[in-house]
Amino acid sequence: MTFASMWADLEPVGRASSGGYRRFALTREDHTLREWFTGEAQARGLDVVTDRAGNQWAWWNAGPEPGIVIGSHLDSVPDGGAFDGPLGVVSAFAALDSLRAAGFTPSRPIAVTNFGDEEGARFGVACAGSRVLTGAMTPDRAKALTDADGISMGEALGSQDIGPDPEMLGRVGAFVELHVEQGRGLADLDRAVAVGSGIWPHGRWRFDLPGEANHAGTTRLEDRHDPMLGYAQLVLAAREAADRHAAVATCGKVRVEPNGVNAIPSLVTGWLDARGADEQRVRAVVDDLRTLAESQGGRVTEESWTGLTPFDGDLAGRLATLLDDAPVLSTGAGHDAGILAAAGLPTAMLFVRNPTGVSHSPAEWAEETDCLAGVAALARVVQDLAS
Amino acid sequence: MTFASMWADLEPVGRASSGGYRRFALTREDHTLREWFTGEAQARGLDVVTDRAGNQWAWWNAGPEPGIVIGSHLDSVPDGGAFDGPLGVVSAFAALDSLRAAGFTPSRPIAVTNFGDEEGARFGVACAGSRVLTGAMTPDRAKALTDADGISMGEALGSQDIGPDPEMLGRVGAFVELHVEQGRGLADLDRAVAVGSGIWPHGRWRFDLPGEANHAGTTRLEDRHDPMLGYAQLVLAAREAADRHAAVATCGKVRVEPNGVNAIPSLVTGWLDARGADEQRVRAVVDDLRTLAESQGGRVTEESWTGLTPFDGDLAGRLATLLDDAPVLSTGAGHDAGILAAAGLPTAMLFVRNPTGVSHSPAEWAEETDCLAGVAALARVVQDLAS
Repeated sequence: MTFASMWADLEPVGRASSGGYRRFALTREDHTLREWFTGEAQARGLDVVTDRAGNQWAWWNAGPEPGIVIGSHLDSVPDGGAFDGPLGVVSAFAALDSLRAAGFTPSRPIAVTNFGDEEGARFGVACAGSRVLTGAMTPDRAKALTDADGISMGEALGSQDIGPDPEMLGRVGAFVELHVEQGRGLADLDRAVAVGSGIWPHGRWRFDLPGEANHAGTTRLEDRHDPMLGYAQLVLAAREAADRHAAVATCGKVRVEPNGVNAIPSLVTGWLDARGADEQRVRAVVDDLRTLAESQGGRVTEESWTGLTPFDGDLAGRLATLLDDAPVLSTGAGHDAGILAAAGLPTAMLFVRNPTGVSHSPAEWAEETDCLAGVAALARVVQDLAS
Repeated sequence: MTFASMWADLEPVGRASSGGYRRFALTREDHTLREWFTGEAQARGLDVVTDRAGNQWAWWNAGPEPGIVIGSHLDSVPDGGAFDGPLGVVSAFAALDSLRAAGFTPSRPIAVTNFGDEEGARFGVACAGSRVLTGAMTPDRAKALTDADGISMGEALGSQDIGPDPEMLGRVGAFVELHVEQGRGLADLDRAVAVGSGIWPHGRWRFDLPGEANHAGTTRLEDRHDPMLGYAQLVLAAREAADRHAAVATCGKVRVEPNGVNAIPSLVTGWLDARGADEQRVRAVVDDLRTLAESQGGRVTEESWTGLTPFDGDLAGRLATLLDDAPVLSTGAGHDAGILAAAGLPTAMLFVRNPTGVSHSPAEWAEETDCLAGVAALARVVQDLAS
């Protein structure tokens, strides 16, 4: 059970013809991944427990006092890469193996975790497993979420019930999530491993741009009220505003009514994802776009907002020093570590170099030497925290 | 069975909560409309025949020589208006009634028609009934067309087979389709009825704009290959090019992969509908956009092209003179009359004033006095041609 053999075991699970992964919550692929997790844990003699929110925990040296928890998730976005999630779980098992091979005897419990439904690819809410665990999302809201086929999470869960699990949270002395970097910070710095400082503020906004349905062939240009034109202006303005305010903004989802080739749309709904190092610059982007949309008769709705989530500063500093003055980077991506940090738990992240910075794509990548450097870093962190 | 009572009978059929109509081919609503047609024809003692392509014909004074055919269609676009199609069928029955009330005895056969699936709302190809009838579309291609649920036209037809019907076409001495105007030509001229001169050249093009899937939160602006930006430029350039070349261009349909709020798209596919008074100006619009799309690494595919379709010039002149020097207008919309004209049949159209010019929308409208002027005009045309 080396890093490479665990990696090879996971490689075919949920792989689409595109080369990307489709590992969605509560599907056959998810079940296979959870069985793999249980198998790896049992082969190491760890105690496997599923918490009330459906997340998996594998405990070594289980005891009453809070332990050191490492791990990540195994699910993926549609056509996602192999590293986002699984790298953290495989590295956690490999770090345990390396500590045991070195004869390390922990003074505290240590656990490897697999958080459920981190990407929210099926039911639309990211970090669903950790949100339910911590109470950030109520079980009723989670169970009412539906997938593209109209199946609710409650239906997909079947006889399994979910809810917060304060007892399990009480066993978490610290959580360290290792993750492939989703940018090129480490590549630019020519380093293999970084420590996370926090998660950028981010939000989602819906822009409803109404128009007047009409015939594409017979309606003069000057008589048109075509909301696709307003949407196009919004997309280009989002890029300009993000550049101006040093943030990022993405128009990745759009819905058109009636979406007919020969019909001027009656409604275009576009979604904006905006993030930045501080709230002020994100709000500045959205304000610029709101002004533009409202000048066209559009309506803007904030669908979600998450403020800056700092990880534990003392812990981050301790890890950076321990790891040969590793760089400390913030990230624009959400993670279960962010949910646990927001719930008040001491939380840290380690990032492993991604040479292209590409993620959420089959082209996502990390060199094996960097992955092994990540395993070694994680082992040093656990040794330090659990001694 | 006055114009108003026929109109009232049709009013509730397939009406959605939006106020618009959803009358799609081979659905329950379509079946109800076809039963209505049969009932109106039988109440007038007409011979009802369904041709091999599934279009309905109701013959008065049937005989061996070619007759005068009037009518239109009863199906609708999604959330379409009440007039596009039904006005021509109801006016045809009303024109027959008025001729009979006046004691007119035709010297040739006269028929009212209801062409099937004119809008192509369900299976994607407009004028499917008249295309199969004339051989412009093969039965195999028609039957292989699928709807949004993946149901093929062949499956929807069940035991009914379809194919061209040259024998029925041989019975058409002339076809006159009355239709609500889909622009403001008559409103601007302050006239109630016009004669059609022909249908503009028109086509559909698909623009595939590839990008690089990536994370919306962690990918720097300068590292993005975001095809939504290229699509936005294309939408705005289409409007500018149409204006520059005095044509019309519409981007009414778009498909985004993976269409996730937090994902930079890997592919945006946009469709262009472009039309104009002559081929040169339509080609000029498409050439401009092709240059733009190809400069972004995009591919352009012509999905359909129909050249200028002139109606019979002698017939149009005769009708314009007969109808008190009615204005003669071309149209950017396709019609079954265009399919029959392209098949070499003497064909004409009458347009009834639409005060706003809006069509393919619940706001589509014609005043009842103008509708009755249309019925009177159609009756005069039939009287002239069938005397």
